[in-house]
Amino acid sequence: MAEQKATNVTWHDHRVSSDDRKKIKSQKSCVMWFTGLSASGKSTIANTVDHKLAELGKHTYLLDGDNIRQGLNKNLGFSAEDRAENIRRIGEVAKLFSDAGLVTLTAFISPYRADRDAVRELLADGDFIEILVDASLEICEARDPKGLYKKARAGEIKGFTGIDDPYEAPEKPELVLDSNSKSIDDLADEVVAFLDANGYLSA
Amino acid sequence: MAEQKATNVTWHDHRVSSDDRKKIKSQKSCVMWFTGLSASGKSTIANTVDHKLAELGKHTYLLDGDNIRQGLNKNLGFSAEDRAENIRRIGEVAKLFSDAGLVTLTAFISPYRADRDAVRELLADGDFIEILVDASLEICEARDPKGLYKKARAGEIKGFTGIDDPYEAPEKPELVLDSNSKSIDDLADEVVAFLDANGYLSA
Repeated sequence: MAEQKATNVTWHDHRVSSDDRKKIKSQKSCVMWFTGLSASGKSTIANTVDHKLAELGKHTYLLDGDNIRQGLNKNLGFSAEDRAENIRRIGEVAKLFSDAGLVTLTAFISPYRADRDAVRELLADGDFIEILVDASLEICEARDPKGLYKKARAGEIKGFTGIDDPYEAPEKPELVLDSNSKSIDDLADEVVAFLDANGYLSA
Repeated sequence: MAEQKATNVTWHDHRVSSDDRKKIKSQKSCVMWFTGLSASGKSTIANTVDHKLAELGKHTYLLDGDNIRQGLNKNLGFSAEDRAENIRRIGEVAKLFSDAGLVTLTAFISPYRADRDAVRELLADGDFIEILVDASLEICEARDPKGLYKKARAGEIKGFTGIDDPYEAPEKPELVLDSNSKSIDDLADEVVAFLDANGYLSA
C-alpha cells in the first residue's frame, strides 16, 4: 500500500501535459472566441473555419448553441445572472478543450465585455483569440433567418441584443471580420490565414 | 445577403461530424467513467491509462478534480443538489469530449447510481464505459493519502462517502478493477486491453 501511495503522488506530478497533447496533434491550441450580433454570421463562419481546418487534418472542436444550450447549460435561462454563468461555463469548457490540445471555436453572441474579458483572464497569453464578427444591426435585422428580430421588435422577446439590450463590442479584438460585405468563405479564409501566420497550425 | 442566408442553412446541416473527428484521429471515442471510494485509486489509474494511451499516440483527455473543481464546478458545494449538478456537468462535458473524437477519462467518486445512470443515458450505446475501482473501505482508510478518512471519523468532514454517506456500487459495470491487491500498472494495462479488444483504439 505504501508503494501505491507513492505512485499516486508521482502520477499527480506527471499528468499527461497540455504540451504532450499538442505534440501528438502536431499543432498548438487556442480558443477562437467569435462574438457579434444575432445573424452576424458567427456560427456560419465558425463552422466554415472548422470545416477548413478539419480538411487540413487539424484537431478542432466547436462549441455553440447546438451543443451547449440543450446540454451543459440547459438549466440556465436569460436573466443577467444566468447569462453571465452561461458564458463563464463556456469559457471554462473552452479552456479544457484548449488544454486537451484542440483548436477550439466558440460562437455565442456574448454581448458583455466583462464576461468575455473574464474568459480571456482564464487563459494564458495568446491562447484567447477574440474575433468580432462585425455586421451592422440593419444588415442583421434584414437577414433575420430565425425571425428573432421581428419578434423582438414586436415585444415578443425581451432583452434582445441590439434591440432592447446592449451589444458591447470588443475594444481590442485580435481579429475583426467584415461581415457586412464579404462572403462567409472569404472571412473563414481570413481566420485560417491568421492562425497559420501566428503559428497555431504547426507544432 | 440571400446567398449568405442560404450558406448559413447549408452549414448547419454540414457541421464537422463526430465521425469526421474520429477519422482524423484514427480511433473511436468513448467515456471511461472511473468510480469508487476515495483513495481507491481512481485518479491514479486513470492518469496511468491516459499516459499509456498518449504513448500509443492516442488522443485522450482526463477530467478529474484537478481540472474541474477549481474551474467549471467551482460554484458548487456538497449539498445533495450540488453533488448531482457536479456529476451532471461532468457528464455533459465528457459527452462533448467524446463527440470531439477523444477517448475521455473521468475520475470522480460519483457515489450515487442515479447520477451515473443519468450520464449513461446521455451517451450512445457503447460510448459509456463504467469502471468500478474496487477497494474495500478498510484498505482505502488505511491508505488515506490526504487524511480525509481520519477527518471524517473525527467528525470534521460531514457526509463523507463510505463513512456517513453511502457508496452505491454499479450493478453492471463494463469493467471491475481489483484495487485491493493488484498494482496500478497492471490495472491500467487491463483497461488498455479492454479498449483494444473492443475496438476503441482503431478507426
